[in-house]
Amino acid sequence: MASDGNGMEEAFVAALRDVLRADQVSTSAKDKSSHARDQGPVTDYHEPVAVVWAESVDQVRAVVRAAAAQGIPLVARGAGTGVSGGAHATAGSVILDLTRMNQILEINPADEVARVEPGVINGDLNAAAAAHGLMFAPDPASYKISTIGGNIATNAGGLRCAKYGVTRDAVLALDVVLADGSLIHTGHRTFKGVAGYDLTSLFVGSEGTLGIVVGATVRLKYLPETVRTIAVFFPDVQSAAAGVLALGAARVQPCILELLDGPSLRELDARNGSALSTRGTALLLVQFDGVAAEQEEALAAAALEKLGGSVNREDPAQAQRLVELRRNNRGLDVDAENRVGEDVAVPRSQLVHYITMLEEMARRHRVDLTVVAHAGDGNLHPTFSVPTFAPDRIKALNDALDESIVKALELGGTITGEHGIGQYKLRWLALEQAEEVLEIQRRIKELFDPQGILNPGKALTPRA
Amino acid sequence: MASDGNGMEEAFVAALRDVLRADQVSTSAKDKSSHARDQGPVTDYHEPVAVVWAESVDQVRAVVRAAAAQGIPLVARGAGTGVSGGAHATAGSVILDLTRMNQILEINPADEVARVEPGVINGDLNAAAAAHGLMFAPDPASYKISTIGGNIATNAGGLRCAKYGVTRDAVLALDVVLADGSLIHTGHRTFKGVAGYDLTSLFVGSEGTLGIVVGATVRLKYLPETVRTIAVFFPDVQSAAAGVLALGAARVQPCILELLDGPSLRELDARNGSALSTRGTALLLVQFDGVAAEQEEALAAAALEKLGGSVNREDPAQAQRLVELRRNNRGLDVDAENRVGEDVAVPRSQLVHYITMLEEMARRHRVDLTVVAHAGDGNLHPTFSVPTFAPDRIKALNDALDESIVKALELGGTITGEHGIGQYKLRWLALEQAEEVLEIQRRIKELFDPQGILNPGKALTPRA
Repeated sequence: MASDGNGMEEAFVAALRDVLRADQVSTSAKDKSSHARDQGPVTDYHEPVAVVWAESVDQVRAVVRAAAAQGIPLVARGAGTGVSGGAHATAGSVILDLTRMNQILEINPADEVARVEPGVINGDLNAAAAAHGLMFAPDPASYKISTIGGNIATNAGGLRCAKYGVTRDAVLALDVVLADGSLIHTGHRTFKGVAGYDLTSLFVGSEGTLGIVVGATVRLKYLPETVRTIAVFFPDVQSAAAGVLALGAARVQPCILELLDGPSLRELDARNGSALSTRGTALLLVQFDGVAAEQEEALAAAALEKLGGSVNREDPAQAQRLVELRRNNRGLDVDAENRVGEDVAVPRSQLVHYITMLEEMARRHRVDLTVVAHAGDGNLHPTFSVPTFAPDRIKALNDALDESIVKALELGGTITGEHGIGQYKLRWLALEQAEEVLEIQRRIKELFDPQGILNPGKALTPRA
Repeated sequence: MASDGNGMEEAFVAALRDVLRADQVSTSAKDKSSHARDQGPVTDYHEPVAVVWAESVDQVRAVVRAAAAQGIPLVARGAGTGVSGGAHATAGSVILDLTRMNQILEINPADEVARVEPGVINGDLNAAAAAHGLMFAPDPASYKISTIGGNIATNAGGLRCAKYGVTRDAVLALDVVLADGSLIHTGHRTFKGVAGYDLTSLFVGSEGTLGIVVGATVRLKYLPETVRTIAVFFPDVQSAAAGVLALGAARVQPCILELLDGPSLRELDARNGSALSTRGTALLLVQFDGVAAEQEEALAAAALEKLGGSVNREDPAQAQRLVELRRNNRGLDVDAENRVGEDVAVPRSQLVHYITMLEEMARRHRVDLTVVAHAGDGNLHPTFSVPTFAPDRIKALNDALDESIVKALELGGTITGEHGIGQYKLRWLALEQAEEVLEIQRRIKELFDPQGILNPGKALTPRA
């Protein structure tokens, strides 16, 4: 084992020696640095004291028991693709990396379920399910590299949840290692089941603060044979947003309904050599799947043309390229102090109004703004950025961020549609949730983790 | 106020005098008797000490505060249509009837949400939503009389959840009065939202043991314009059950997929003067809705004919009649000691096998059996009955019930797909859930309700 050496680490590592190989524990500077953060903005950088790669449920239990015995904070993580800092290392923490637990244990096409280890890559599960004509519906933009365990920790959304729901809707049962090292099973393998409190939903989205998910039984959906995609360009982003409501009024259910504003299109063009921004000022990318895809496409096209949209029916290859461009619109940029992608959601009726407000805020605070949205869910990812780290520009950025959050809440929205609170969004949680609700969550946390060793300082606003 | 009088009641009622009118509190024998039970089997009959009809959130809070002050158990109830005894009165309890809180506060067609008081009848919400081309998808058989609050308390299912999910999937946010009389709001008005732990899902299905739901924001779905229904008769129930898997393999998604065995058909015929049992030995009732309904119907018919099904395309009026017959197949029979409707679910791949086992059990224990199933979800409602209350027949009935539960669990199933644990199913809960999982739930209960005044003795297996 590579080690920089100190007493506490040595004691912890000694406790693991019986169950882990040397290559499963590291205190090397390189490993500590590469596991210090996820893709969320960093406001308080720490490196972990060690990184541990568990390869089985029993090993996770042994690691948790050792951590509990010595009061060492554990930050469980998968691929580290989260964007709220939920997997950031905290002071004195050990990173428990679950990416080696990457076995698909079962795909049962008759039951339409799969059982997986937490480190299975979302895209790998989808590839395996596709062989049976099935899919795992949650598809965060990171699906090619993010893990099911991470998807569960954040209750990840994605593009397809307009029609298919979020990760919670796809999780039937969980195996969870609790803070004392005990192992429990929650939920059921059947689609329906109401025995006892819904502990499964309590763990989904809890960002590793209540227990460590070491196995999941997930529901699969039918992989559609027919897919139809239209790219609809509008003269302004407000008309595109109005198109979302028009599709609702037309009673069609897209599987993907993405909105991209002008600056987003220009950014994509600059990155990818596309020419989207020459085709209009804002884009609604609308995909239908399943038996009704063609009919729904026709209904949607008619509704959007009435609003002034320029409807382009995309051939499958071009459509796939557009969807992939949208998925990758963050590019290689990791959020940083001077560039923060938001994740608010507002009721759909407020989409047009809210986007107009965002543009006004950006102008007033003199910050750059791009807006993409999982518009079918009212879930927006405005990205605010400033070109320098000059203190007054960072302040302007944060003022715009704070104002965008407050306005979303005033319109009946939420501060996070799918990314989670993690560490970065703690500053806004108390704006959305009353102290009574926060206190209930703290007490649930204490019930599950009395020592506070599971991802401390995340997901919950601390007591004042 | 009508009163039979005693000290504790008088003190409780005195505390409510400032906030409730005389017609909102009763201790009359008639009211106590009519509110003593729901439609579940009774094993331990008690009448409440009083019945209270709250008409506002503030009144609920006042009632809870008064109950907390005097340690009086409160059983909240809606229409009392539950079938697990979740709303049965317990010793010394006060029934808190919420049926007068029956206002639909908002239907927002653009946001596709409604806000309701807990006493709103499911069918009334659906009628109001239909005026906007929308529907509240959960449709328990009792939808014409059951309340949204009761649907939430039990996480009710129904026929349409094969396609549209259960109550939990339709609930976005809740207003809940806690055991100390405080009021909290959980969840979000938006379709997606991951701020904090999922308290909303924790309350859904908790049967009034964690708090009293006094308001709900629910997601509405599009009311389909096209509906197609086929009635497919099979020579035996096993072939009908195999049809469920064939529909899955054909990748069609019915909104309703109900299975009725021969005895169920004969019972319906005897009650309603229909002639279903002359058309075949078992029935799959398959309904498709939405833009693809006709195409899906054709695919389904082809798949089921291949299995030996006799496919009858039903005209809309006859189809509606069949669906209503199915919804009402319990007839006026309330479960009793000699007639118990079960609610197990099994993985769909086990449907054929499990039904065969049920038939074998019924023969061996010499009890009568009918089987209906929300087959798309693997959720079966076998009803076991014996013609008399003779102790040996009741024992045989209970032996068959217990065995059916054990077998469902062995096949990877659950003891309750949609009815809840209530009081009647407590005896089986520990067969499904490990002691560690039960203990976590007890501790969550204690966190929310330290005095144990909210529907005590329900939903949770007590400590040994």
